[in-house]
Amino acid sequence: MASQDIRTSSLKKPITITEYLFARLKQCGVSSVHGLPGDYNLVALDYLEKAGLKWVGNCNELNAGYASDGYARIKGLSALITTFGVGELSAINAIAGAYSEYVPIVHIVGTPATSAQKDGLLLHHTLGNGNYDVFVDMFRSVSCAVANIKDLNTAAAEIDHVIRECYIQSRPVYIGLPCDIVEDKVEGERLDQPIDLSYPPNPEEQEDYVVDVVLKYLHAAKNPVILVDGCAIRHRAQKETHDLVVKSGLPTFVAPLGKGCIDETLPNYGGVYAGDGSNEGVRDRVESSDLVLSIGAIKSDFNTAGFTFRQSQLTTIDFHSNFIQVRYSQYPGVRMNGVLRKVVDKMGKLNVEAGPKPTNRTSSQDNSQTITHKYFWPRLGQWLREEDIVLTETGTSNFGIFETRFPAKVQLISQVLWGSIGYATGSAQGAALAAKELEEEKGEKHRTILLTGEGSFQLTAQEVSTMIRRKLKPIIFLIVNDGYTIERMIHGMNAEYNDVQEWKWKDLVPAFGAKEGEYKTYTIKSREELDQLMADDNFNSAPYLQFVEMYMPKEDAPEALKLTASAAERRNAKVQA
Amino acid sequence: MASQDIRTSSLKKPITITEYLFARLKQCGVSSVHGLPGDYNLVALDYLEKAGLKWVGNCNELNAGYASDGYARIKGLSALITTFGVGELSAINAIAGAYSEYVPIVHIVGTPATSAQKDGLLLHHTLGNGNYDVFVDMFRSVSCAVANIKDLNTAAAEIDHVIRECYIQSRPVYIGLPCDIVEDKVEGERLDQPIDLSYPPNPEEQEDYVVDVVLKYLHAAKNPVILVDGCAIRHRAQKETHDLVVKSGLPTFVAPLGKGCIDETLPNYGGVYAGDGSNEGVRDRVESSDLVLSIGAIKSDFNTAGFTFRQSQLTTIDFHSNFIQVRYSQYPGVRMNGVLRKVVDKMGKLNVEAGPKPTNRTSSQDNSQTITHKYFWPRLGQWLREEDIVLTETGTSNFGIFETRFPAKVQLISQVLWGSIGYATGSAQGAALAAKELEEEKGEKHRTILLTGEGSFQLTAQEVSTMIRRKLKPIIFLIVNDGYTIERMIHGMNAEYNDVQEWKWKDLVPAFGAKEGEYKTYTIKSREELDQLMADDNFNSAPYLQFVEMYMPKEDAPEALKLTASAAERRNAKVQA
Repeated sequence: MASQDIRTSSLKKPITITEYLFARLKQCGVSSVHGLPGDYNLVALDYLEKAGLKWVGNCNELNAGYASDGYARIKGLSALITTFGVGELSAINAIAGAYSEYVPIVHIVGTPATSAQKDGLLLHHTLGNGNYDVFVDMFRSVSCAVANIKDLNTAAAEIDHVIRECYIQSRPVYIGLPCDIVEDKVEGERLDQPIDLSYPPNPEEQEDYVVDVVLKYLHAAKNPVILVDGCAIRHRAQKETHDLVVKSGLPTFVAPLGKGCIDETLPNYGGVYAGDGSNEGVRDRVESSDLVLSIGAIKSDFNTAGFTFRQSQLTTIDFHSNFIQVRYSQYPGVRMNGVLRKVVDKMGKLNVEAGPKPTNRTSSQDNSQTITHKYFWPRLGQWLREEDIVLTETGTSNFGIFETRFPAKVQLISQVLWGSIGYATGSAQGAALAAKELEEEKGEKHRTILLTGEGSFQLTAQEVSTMIRRKLKPIIFLIVNDGYTIERMIHGMNAEYNDVQEWKWKDLVPAFGAKEGEYKTYTIKSREELDQLMADDNFNSAPYLQFVEMYMPKEDAPEALKLTASAAERRNAKVQA
Repeated sequence: MASQDIRTSSLKKPITITEYLFARLKQCGVSSVHGLPGDYNLVALDYLEKAGLKWVGNCNELNAGYASDGYARIKGLSALITTFGVGELSAINAIAGAYSEYVPIVHIVGTPATSAQKDGLLLHHTLGNGNYDVFVDMFRSVSCAVANIKDLNTAAAEIDHVIRECYIQSRPVYIGLPCDIVEDKVEGERLDQPIDLSYPPNPEEQEDYVVDVVLKYLHAAKNPVILVDGCAIRHRAQKETHDLVVKSGLPTFVAPLGKGCIDETLPNYGGVYAGDGSNEGVRDRVESSDLVLSIGAIKSDFNTAGFTFRQSQLTTIDFHSNFIQVRYSQYPGVRMNGVLRKVVDKMGKLNVEAGPKPTNRTSSQDNSQTITHKYFWPRLGQWLREEDIVLTETGTSNFGIFETRFPAKVQLISQVLWGSIGYATGSAQGAALAAKELEEEKGEKHRTILLTGEGSFQLTAQEVSTMIRRKLKPIIFLIVNDGYTIERMIHGMNAEYNDVQEWKWKDLVPAFGAKEGEYKTYTIKSREELDQLMADDNFNSAPYLQFVEMYMPKEDAPEALKLTASAAERRNAKVQA
């Protein structure tokens, strides 16, 4: 069309909007894009390869969303492509989870042609009512920014804006890309200038003021401790937190969502604090402290064993991504990263008392061969290696992992707040792909280890197919214990609705297309078998996808889960007068 | 609590709200409830058995939603139970599809305790922002009524209202049931009076007026025809439509969404009309008619081979659920059912010309053994039996089925408007369960036959596990043809993004837990093998779940799909000046 040609001729380096978008993703560290093809996104997919991006091609959109979440947690940003209506809605639970847990996913939705939208055509994948905004409106509640592209003159700037917001706010964004403009041109010269992904610095005077207040309380405290939670990871304050922990020498604990943030081999690391669900000795130590430096707290029920924190706000300093709170005084508009850095620099000598030594039982002292939770989770810690990426599922594994002491540099992925079962298997595909890319791009060596239960596994099992297809090498521990254990613990211990169909779990791997010699499966029913497996060099070297069917007793669960579950049952039931 | 006790003591037959809800579902013909357990719905699930309802227990919520859709299409109403946030959002694509295609599903969501909602507690399955209305607000766009229950005094009336709306409007409704009130009491005496599920009668004078107008045009027409579409089924006008077709003797055609509504063995049945995608001869006959009685039309792109209807509004009378339109005159507020009944009663003698004989080629005349679409779909028609329930997937089978002539009383389930791939496998679980119940409850004999492709199958494959678990006996034809054929036809014939991982399809059935002797699988690669299978009495008697892996050529597709796909590609691309 003439007007389009005139517009294009005014561009210095005209490139298609799709090339522009993909180039931006690539610049921001995305190497592979998750999703499924659909007719409204097909032409855009043609540009992936040209942009140097790989296509994953998941089995369904929810799985693709979970995988994007796992990929983003390892690589810092991810991209997901779905199609209008049917595709995007299938992924919305994963996007809501990423919103809830601060995970940056750029969700690109191929939408019908601008003309079809304007005319309200009765197209497939619509509600039949001519309303083309229904779905994007749903996503506004679970996205930190939306670019529903209509105007090519502003499209490139809109793309830059939402990608920056995605990264800075560490939450999903939505880009609606109508299928008739994917090959229209925008200004390519903008690409010479990378998107600014740096946090805006804190206002200096304000930051210094807060730092002084923090230091005043810190120096006055007799036995301060550090408590690290999920937002320290999600808002990228790991380095500042690590330096604070090392330089201060203060006893340091992690909330469940913060596990993996701290080097657990440090002498001042003391274990997991989760109220009633804390590691042995930790609760007393934290709650008797006269000052808790609480970094990135998310005080949700599953992160606190059912709101059983007993820490007083009078003895707490909270560090957050957008404010600091000292006792009851709030200091809005300052980000923890800069404040923590200055606290480290200026801290000087502090009062330091020892915390409890973190527990890591090598095994229960009984002679049983049964793999109980009490046995397994500490044992796992002995087997893990530096740089491992560990994923646990909402269920026994999210709580069992409290009892696993990590080697240095282990990253933990779990969805403690959103808690969607099935998440971990999808997420493991994305994490394992990110690990593979980090090996190719930076020579890093990460194993990806998934721990899930058979109830959760059924929701998203087919993503094992994508792992096989993309030659990923995760080690999957499938805990087989007769159904939805977390639900049993909350209500209905023997109810039929907490049972699941018994699958031949290991047979799924070849059924999903894994070829002889390119995978291995194992059945583990005793401690002896587990020990042998964990001593097997080939197994440990993770040469291909490995699937371990591990049997545990039906009514066994980690202590922390039992406590959290009974708190949940009480809260869900009627409050008794 | 005291106030609750006083309220309860004023009830004549106090029963828990959950018992009330389930009793209503049972009264409305629901015998099984689909869904997954989650901690916010567990206590409610305890009441299913007491209410005489069976629990399905699906593998994931999207599949459960699709299954509810299939069940509702056969039994008239269905129920789905999910949990807050994670569960309900996973199902929203299925609910949107049911909204789009007029399928009545009562979606019950277990929500957090009223007190937790009021206090904005930071619970799992929330966005962490204390907003408990985000998800129900999303569902408002895809539900025809919502009861987010807070007040026990009105709860029973709210439940009755939404169930009635669900049935009458034939669309999903949403019931939010907080977990702390599931055992609170409501008035059970209300149950003595069933919910009124009858359509409000048309205002008599208005109805008579419209009937006269219709008859005037009908008698004046020289060669009128009848065209039956999806809303004739979805708004329960099959009986009136059938009587019109039989009594009038007019040549009768179906749009794709209307297929299955008409007895295709009637002498005046003429085949599928879908514009360019019509059966041979049908297009000319319909478009040369001087009056089309169009019943329940949904003129979407996939239902019209890309808007290639050429029927003039000047020669059309449209019958809808909430209005009648004669040429350009609208008659709002009258439902087709009553109007059609009176038209049948008063119609007298009409001008009738023959339509084309519907095509049902027994086979292509070549000597090839390749199972092409041209060969398969007519062949399927010869094999089908009366009372069969046939499900086709968005893909080759939704279009191939145009060429299949049905025996009497065959019901077709397909999602032509919403078009979510993966739908058919989930839906088949619900349809097969409904068939089983109709056998138990009414002695009816229905086979359930699913036709899907391997790309679509990967999205929802694990629902085969639920079929096995609940001892359902569908016959599954899996068309193996190397990827997403419908997408290839639209764009990217050889693009890698239209490939899928190759599974060992048949091996999935035992991997999902089917026991030796309780299932059978087949591989079909030639016409001869297909003919043998279709002549096998054991196969035909559907004694257990049967899974047929059927190979078809990668680049082959039904003609109607090729036409629709190229129309879609043109519309998706830039309009050229």
